[in-house]
Amino acid sequence: MNYKMVRYTLAVLLLFEALFLFVPMLTALCYEEWSSLLACGITALICIVIAAPFMFRKPKNTDLYAKEGFVIVSLSWILLSAFSALPFVISGSIPNYIDAFFEAASGLTTTGSSIVPAVEDLPKSMLMWRSFMHWVGGMGVLVFIMAILPLSGAQNMHIMRAESPGPQVSKLVPRVKTTASILYLIYIAITVIMVLALLIDKDINAFEAINTAMATAGTGGFGIKNDSLFSASSYVQIVATVFMILFSINFNSYYLILKKKIKDAINTEVIVFLGIVFTAITIVTLDVFLNKSLVSPTGEAMDTTFGGALKHAAFSVASLISTTGFATVDFQHWSALSHFVLILIMFIGACAGSTGGGLKVSRIVILFKAMLREFGNLIHPNRVKKISIDDKPLEDEAVHSVMTYLATYVFIFVTSLLLISIDQSIFNPAENTFVTNFSAVACTFNNIGPGLDFVGPTQNFADFSPISKMILSFDMLAGRLELFPMLILFTPSTWKK
Amino acid sequence: MNYKMVRYTLAVLLLFEALFLFVPMLTALCYEEWSSLLACGITALICIVIAAPFMFRKPKNTDLYAKEGFVIVSLSWILLSAFSALPFVISGSIPNYIDAFFEAASGLTTTGSSIVPAVEDLPKSMLMWRSFMHWVGGMGVLVFIMAILPLSGAQNMHIMRAESPGPQVSKLVPRVKTTASILYLIYIAITVIMVLALLIDKDINAFEAINTAMATAGTGGFGIKNDSLFSASSYVQIVATVFMILFSINFNSYYLILKKKIKDAINTEVIVFLGIVFTAITIVTLDVFLNKSLVSPTGEAMDTTFGGALKHAAFSVASLISTTGFATVDFQHWSALSHFVLILIMFIGACAGSTGGGLKVSRIVILFKAMLREFGNLIHPNRVKKISIDDKPLEDEAVHSVMTYLATYVFIFVTSLLLISIDQSIFNPAENTFVTNFSAVACTFNNIGPGLDFVGPTQNFADFSPISKMILSFDMLAGRLELFPMLILFTPSTWKK
Repeated sequence: MNYKMVRYTLAVLLLFEALFLFVPMLTALCYEEWSSLLACGITALICIVIAAPFMFRKPKNTDLYAKEGFVIVSLSWILLSAFSALPFVISGSIPNYIDAFFEAASGLTTTGSSIVPAVEDLPKSMLMWRSFMHWVGGMGVLVFIMAILPLSGAQNMHIMRAESPGPQVSKLVPRVKTTASILYLIYIAITVIMVLALLIDKDINAFEAINTAMATAGTGGFGIKNDSLFSASSYVQIVATVFMILFSINFNSYYLILKKKIKDAINTEVIVFLGIVFTAITIVTLDVFLNKSLVSPTGEAMDTTFGGALKHAAFSVASLISTTGFATVDFQHWSALSHFVLILIMFIGACAGSTGGGLKVSRIVILFKAMLREFGNLIHPNRVKKISIDDKPLEDEAVHSVMTYLATYVFIFVTSLLLISIDQSIFNPAENTFVTNFSAVACTFNNIGPGLDFVGPTQNFADFSPISKMILSFDMLAGRLELFPMLILFTPSTWKK
Repeated sequence: MNYKMVRYTLAVLLLFEALFLFVPMLTALCYEEWSSLLACGITALICIVIAAPFMFRKPKNTDLYAKEGFVIVSLSWILLSAFSALPFVISGSIPNYIDAFFEAASGLTTTGSSIVPAVEDLPKSMLMWRSFMHWVGGMGVLVFIMAILPLSGAQNMHIMRAESPGPQVSKLVPRVKTTASILYLIYIAITVIMVLALLIDKDINAFEAINTAMATAGTGGFGIKNDSLFSASSYVQIVATVFMILFSINFNSYYLILKKKIKDAINTEVIVFLGIVFTAITIVTLDVFLNKSLVSPTGEAMDTTFGGALKHAAFSVASLISTTGFATVDFQHWSALSHFVLILIMFIGACAGSTGGGLKVSRIVILFKAMLREFGNLIHPNRVKKISIDDKPLEDEAVHSVMTYLATYVFIFVTSLLLISIDQSIFNPAENTFVTNFSAVACTFNNIGPGLDFVGPTQNFADFSPISKMILSFDMLAGRLELFPMLILFTPSTWKK
């Protein structure tokens, strides 16, 4: 383990954290929120003071291997969550540090689960900080740093691989730095287009448009209204639906479209993803329309037209498959069929290489193809069949690693649920049902945000005990970093010299 | 596909079905239930009439390959369920054929889910038929036939492999026929011991003891009382607890114990299984005792002593991990922690090579070891590590097939749940919750029986629509036959000459 290089990279990260804090500071200046301005300033200062001593000498040995890549990524995200929580605590917006850590981890991992009962009470600068964490966490903090700084050449691939979602990371161009820059430029461009699209609505101001766009871009889901997007105009809801889906597609596809390689851009994963979205919207729309089960947050029956059903169904499907977690309707009251479809797509998640969470469509495709092959082998044991996706043969190793991913996913899921259940049985007996706990873990681990039952779209996570909040924070980080970087911290051999 | 041989084997099977029917016929004679006697007689006659023409000439080509093995097993079980349903319909005990098919499939697959609202209303011979189906289905119908008839030599292994639960089937002795006989002799011996153990209780008669023992042996769970084992004596409940665990252990271990190879008998799977049982009982006992959540079927608080908590916790854990499905308490009222533990162990299931269902402990062990290895590979990409279990190296192929099993399991689970949800949304809107549907699929697919929520231990499956009952019947068969034999029927290439 190259400790010096790990330390150096983390110090660089902290300096960037200080830089990020200028966004809420600027907002605080605009809205004259002096205590938030001070809180962000103090946090930035702490970051600089801690980082500075390590910045003076860059290590001679800049070698980074897979192990260092994982460790740097997991420690970066923990450190970033820890420091991003400080402005909430210092400004008094979220006085409890564990709550603030949960909120920061939820922001950076683009989960969108909140412990704040009424977000409208938060200062505007803190709302901006939450949205900005979504935005920068969505595409990846270290990818961002790589796009700007010329770190140590080719070995950055290990960091990029550890931070980017999906089973395989392909470099768009030979240089990692250029790849990172291209991805961020596309990301910025689509975010700006969304801000402009939102501003066409006369009732929405720049602050609201920027926040909503950043939370959508990261597929995060922190709202700036207590009722998420319930009370937003139909236009805003439709814009959000479209962009939630756009941000769920592999960013490589956008690059390929820009390069006029349309055929390569529309690959199997994109087609399957859009197929799932379309099917899910169709089923939920019909189900909601025929059973007339649209209900407002206050429990009244809503718009019962087909158009209304379609709008809310499409929004909910886009929100859950992209793992954003915005809501325009309380889907608690929908039927078992719609619940099933929504739960299923939230586990499937978005495309690899997008800002969305979940298992990722490409993993589902690989699993499905592997299953069909194995099945063929059972019938014809002597015929060896290769799996290929998009005409590229899929190596056994890749299939194996996807399956291990699934097993590890289940393992972390089950362990978290057990720990939270034990914690609640001791501190909070008979408070939460199995479904509540299950959906709390599912929603944090898949980086969605709001769940079903007691943590449904109109509730929040404030009632969980501090221990449970820490476990759920771990789940958010493990989900965002795709399991292994977080687990590696617990492996003794990682820390051997 | 060797059609002639498939047809011949199925004809043999039907003759055995006629033979099996002598068990309820004998019971009907004892209790003077003439309509049941007639119903069973007619069914036996139908079986013989259909089978006879195919019995005259044994095919010259008796070759059976893996494909034929799967097809024979799946068709046998469907055929057996179809004919085993007839006595219920003809005697009028269960007039609707789909209901009767569900009940028969539930019996043979040792699921124990019932559509009968009050079993005490059934004739004694029909109760005996249900219990006997559990017993013969538990160890395997075709294994039974193999133990008796000298079918076509070594190739029987394909049938045995397709019918026996678990990732690997090892022959105890070189000859398949002898292996099958040994397994059945052990099975009969433990069943008889259980009958004798139950008869020590003075309040239990021979009929009750035999039924309870057969339902326990097959880890089935059909009761002969409306309240399952709620009202049984503590002694009977404890005996059932012990035997449910005994029948969940790989029968090979009993053979090895008889051979005085104690060290080989207590293998990794058995140790892990007993470890899980012990841990689960500890957690549930403490949880139930501390939260005082024992509740009788009528909703009254029960025995609040530690001993009472231990007894019911141990019974429930044994009942669910063995996938039997007997109940002595309504665990609906237990806390989220206990629910979680019970749900988890019902997915894990029993040991391979036992009569229990679920994913099987050995698969969990293989998955866990594969996960650890993959994780090691991520940290040290150049170190190739082999997995071994009980000092035997585990081939990549076996790991791969367990992972495919898991993926297929999830795929069938999700598809069944989707179909049932769609069926209900159309025919039964707003009746069932997602949890009810989920637990109905989980309980039939894992061959458990009673579920949570509306299909909880004090409810039954009568309210599902006919289409849903057929899907759940498919799940029972797919779960019992370990997925692939049932899926193979839907593969066009199976039916090519």
